[in-house]
Amino acid sequence: MPFYAAPIARLLEELERLPGIGPKSAQRLAFHILRADMDAATRLAEAVLEVKRSIHFCSICFNFAENESCDICADPERDDAVVCVVEEPRDIVAIERTGEFRGRYHVLQGAISPIDGIGPEQLRIRELVDRLAPGTVTEIIIATDPDVEGETTALYLARLVKPLGIRVTRIASGLPVGGDLEYADEVTLGRALEARREM
Amino acid sequence: MPFYAAPIARLLEELERLPGIGPKSAQRLAFHILRADMDAATRLAEAVLEVKRSIHFCSICFNFAENESCDICADPERDDAVVCVVEEPRDIVAIERTGEFRGRYHVLQGAISPIDGIGPEQLRIRELVDRLAPGTVTEIIIATDPDVEGETTALYLARLVKPLGIRVTRIASGLPVGGDLEYADEVTLGRALEARREM
Repeated sequence: MPFYAAPIARLLEELERLPGIGPKSAQRLAFHILRADMDAATRLAEAVLEVKRSIHFCSICFNFAENESCDICADPERDDAVVCVVEEPRDIVAIERTGEFRGRYHVLQGAISPIDGIGPEQLRIRELVDRLAPGTVTEIIIATDPDVEGETTALYLARLVKPLGIRVTRIASGLPVGGDLEYADEVTLGRALEARREM
Repeated sequence: MPFYAAPIARLLEELERLPGIGPKSAQRLAFHILRADMDAATRLAEAVLEVKRSIHFCSICFNFAENESCDICADPERDDAVVCVVEEPRDIVAIERTGEFRGRYHVLQGAISPIDGIGPEQLRIRELVDRLAPGTVTEIIIATDPDVEGETTALYLARLVKPLGIRVTRIASGLPVGGDLEYADEVTLGRALEARREM
């Protein structure tokens, strides 16, 4: 005999499909939902459906957007001359939180990864080049992840964009602030030494 | 400007209400749902709603049930003479997994906790006593949690049920199997010593 009634088993199955949710977490979530009032469960289900119904990709930068273009692309206050290139929409959130960047973004929707069959054609690189054509953009900051795929993508973009006479920069690699030298891996520490600055 | 479009912010808010889901996990889940296809999102939302629509409490033992009585109460193969008393439906799942118990259950839906305003009247204790009245049950195993509330509830039930001439037992406290003596707290170790058995 199964441990759970069929609707509970189905909910557990769906919850376990979510990233970082194992059987134990799924059970905790399911029992929470079972104990919650109907209103709370409806709000959760409705929020899931609403996000799928109303959110699509911004036609300019490929961030998630509720309208034709995202809030950042629609903001007239932002600097059109600098475009920060990221892999995923969540990276925009991370950069926005710093409050250090007032330019535009471009989401590649991934990184070059031959092993996963992802080449430049699978990414929003053609759309990036199209955005650079009018000549408004003077710098692109490549903020792909500092891993093999992100570095490959950065190199590819640099080779593609530099000939257009646009400045191409890469976010710095080094020790995280508050980090511990002792626990830094040798590649990161090597990069930090290489990119040392005059004080 | 907010970091997220309104529907995403709403989904994040609902996800963060779930137990064990902080802002980082909520973001990971939300971005997963955004990337998933519409079908997967619909299945998740539908599973949440379906569980609320179709699951209620078993009229006999107060476990979660799809029908009038739960699968365990409806199973003619199980032993009517022994009732295992637990706090929550999830405790039934834990005990069923052991495969050691073939009797019936009774879910109190909580434990006595004066600080939270939960007395015996707030629990399914009257319903338990009603179940014992016909005289079929010869033993109740009290499997409430081995914490203050669970122990208080166990003592209360023992005092209530013993005079009815029914055997009342309590699940053993002691060191968890595979545990380490060194890291056991002194109360658990004390209990383990007190409840030592002849080999």
